[in-house]
Amino acid sequence: MTGVRVAGVGLTQFGRQPERTGRDLFAEAALAAREDAGISGDDIEEINYGNFMGALAERQGHQAPLMAKMVGVNCPATRYEEACASAGVAVREAVRTVRSGEADVVLAGGCERMTNLSTADVTEGLATAADDLFEIRAGITFPSAYALMARAYFERFGGSREDLAHVAMKNHDNALPNEYAQFHREITVEEALDAPMVADPLGLLDACPVTDGASAVVFVSDEYAAANDLEAPVSVTGSGQGGDNLALQAREQLAVTPATERAASEAYADAGRDPADVDLVEVHDCFTIAEVLAIEGLGFYEPGEGVGAARRGETTASGDRPVNLSGGLKAKGHPVGATGGSQIAEMTRLLRGDHPNSEHVPDATVGVTHNAGGTVASAVVHVLEVDR
Amino acid sequence: MTGVRVAGVGLTQFGRQPERTGRDLFAEAALAAREDAGISGDDIEEINYGNFMGALAERQGHQAPLMAKMVGVNCPATRYEEACASAGVAVREAVRTVRSGEADVVLAGGCERMTNLSTADVTEGLATAADDLFEIRAGITFPSAYALMARAYFERFGGSREDLAHVAMKNHDNALPNEYAQFHREITVEEALDAPMVADPLGLLDACPVTDGASAVVFVSDEYAAANDLEAPVSVTGSGQGGDNLALQAREQLAVTPATERAASEAYADAGRDPADVDLVEVHDCFTIAEVLAIEGLGFYEPGEGVGAARRGETTASGDRPVNLSGGLKAKGHPVGATGGSQIAEMTRLLRGDHPNSEHVPDATVGVTHNAGGTVASAVVHVLEVDR
Repeated sequence: MTGVRVAGVGLTQFGRQPERTGRDLFAEAALAAREDAGISGDDIEEINYGNFMGALAERQGHQAPLMAKMVGVNCPATRYEEACASAGVAVREAVRTVRSGEADVVLAGGCERMTNLSTADVTEGLATAADDLFEIRAGITFPSAYALMARAYFERFGGSREDLAHVAMKNHDNALPNEYAQFHREITVEEALDAPMVADPLGLLDACPVTDGASAVVFVSDEYAAANDLEAPVSVTGSGQGGDNLALQAREQLAVTPATERAASEAYADAGRDPADVDLVEVHDCFTIAEVLAIEGLGFYEPGEGVGAARRGETTASGDRPVNLSGGLKAKGHPVGATGGSQIAEMTRLLRGDHPNSEHVPDATVGVTHNAGGTVASAVVHVLEVDR
Repeated sequence: MTGVRVAGVGLTQFGRQPERTGRDLFAEAALAAREDAGISGDDIEEINYGNFMGALAERQGHQAPLMAKMVGVNCPATRYEEACASAGVAVREAVRTVRSGEADVVLAGGCERMTNLSTADVTEGLATAADDLFEIRAGITFPSAYALMARAYFERFGGSREDLAHVAMKNHDNALPNEYAQFHREITVEEALDAPMVADPLGLLDACPVTDGASAVVFVSDEYAAANDLEAPVSVTGSGQGGDNLALQAREQLAVTPATERAASEAYADAGRDPADVDLVEVHDCFTIAEVLAIEGLGFYEPGEGVGAARRGETTASGDRPVNLSGGLKAKGHPVGATGGSQIAEMTRLLRGDHPNSEHVPDATVGVTHNAGGTVASAVVHVLEVDR
């Protein structure tokens, strides 16, 4: 087994860009990652591509060979789909492929084109990440599913809409200097509380936006990095994946996320780390409550203790363990199939010191990324570490 | 690196069963595979699931955790999509995961539900395996795409509709005793030639049917098989994957399939085998011409020589190297996301000696499976070998 390094990362602008095709977006991110890595396209041996709803949004399946062609590489390419964790599983398999010696250089990432659809069609498309038979036909949508989880959390552990508003405010603050983020706008707790209610207790500012964008990461073996004199200080030292019942109705409780716990447990064991070692975190905050569930599932807080973390300042940029310094899905945006790759890209930039928010974490050495599918019926966790 | 064994296989009936859901179909195949393997569900560490058009056919994405639940297993589950090669890539990653020691037991396969859709919707859904911008909007469908390939082949190398009719007749003959096959009906060359023309030179009997069905295979390490006294005589000794331009217009020529050549070259090298070692073959004959292209791409025939193979009797059940003893996609059926797994299942049965057509190949030890996506923009090849 070899170590796995991040040789380069690439992102497109996140936001509304309905005139751009998925292939166009992914090519931009992938070529940027290649340039950041300083490698030749001919060295890329495999491409792992995450995408969720391309069949609905672009009438395009079988995207992987298309994306390889767009990147100018003639190599095997495979699409991974795990709802909002599509790029997470694409990344995970890339890490395992390099680690096992099957390939020295794998490009992984993903893309989603969403804003070309009507709001109704986007909502319907996203709903395919839930259970069609037992949830969607009963009228549930994702805001209402996460609202059920928030209500269950409040009922069991306490917490308030104000607590969640602090999560939203923090992530908007973090996105301000991030050149790739969809939103560059400060919000206040009052604005979040006053925003239109979407599904009680979640208002409009508790939800991530609809986003077009792409992400790409070049993973290489230690040996390849050394042989090619690559500057690749960040390694992936741990990877884990967990699953759960797809439908909320089949779960014993809604205020915890066992898929995250399983993925984290595997990733920590893989890296030989535990939560206390972790300096900063990128989690899947598709809704504010999702960030709370994630930081508890990842072991940074006991169940019921995470909801006040942002309010207490523990997870802000100046806190002890900043969460979502990129702005998170909430403010950086959530191009579904790209998100898992963008978390690796942002964490790499943060640890390398070339992210606008790196100044808040100059001594950070261990980062964790957390990508979730649907209502956390699937989760993927990675541990990244930087040579200092 | 450990060796990888096929511990068990499972298939549903292939055919029209529009009243059954995808989850129902996959559960049947997976539970059959578990029973065939004689293992506990708790031992399954990962599930790799292939599906192509579930978002369109069932409004269901994020199927992998759903399928894990249906199989009664609480483990990471990932969906793979590579058009008609979806289960092929799911199988390939399962083989690599076991081989690298990441897991000892992985269940891989796939499912497709298609006949619940109208014919027009199926045609439109299948078309998402081609290039939306450069092919579909120009009016191409899959029968016409393969008709272009057949015309290019005839023009370059010769061959005739009669040659292709022999492929169809052979595969219908092979399906006759196969209990899982969609068609149990002999056809004659004359019937094939007289069938309604779909896209010249391909008639109705040159095309595979629309099929509902599922497949599952349990892969285990040599060590697990030995430690648990499993009867698992078939090993996967080689795996390869290749890609090509998605759109036909971007290829230099249409009468050859470089993705198959690349996948085969990798799989043979991996297994330490060459085409002369291979006793029987399951190839991706979505159309009769596709079988011809496949047996040439796999190295069994020089370009231009494969078209007469069925007519000459070389690839029939009594021939030197039978092709598609299962009946192939043509007569066994083609539930898109399940096909790559069903090829492994059928090859395993043929090599173990418990397939109705095993009697034709009592001494066979080396088999090859070939699963292709779209117009062979992707291809996956595996080499299977049996202890004798």
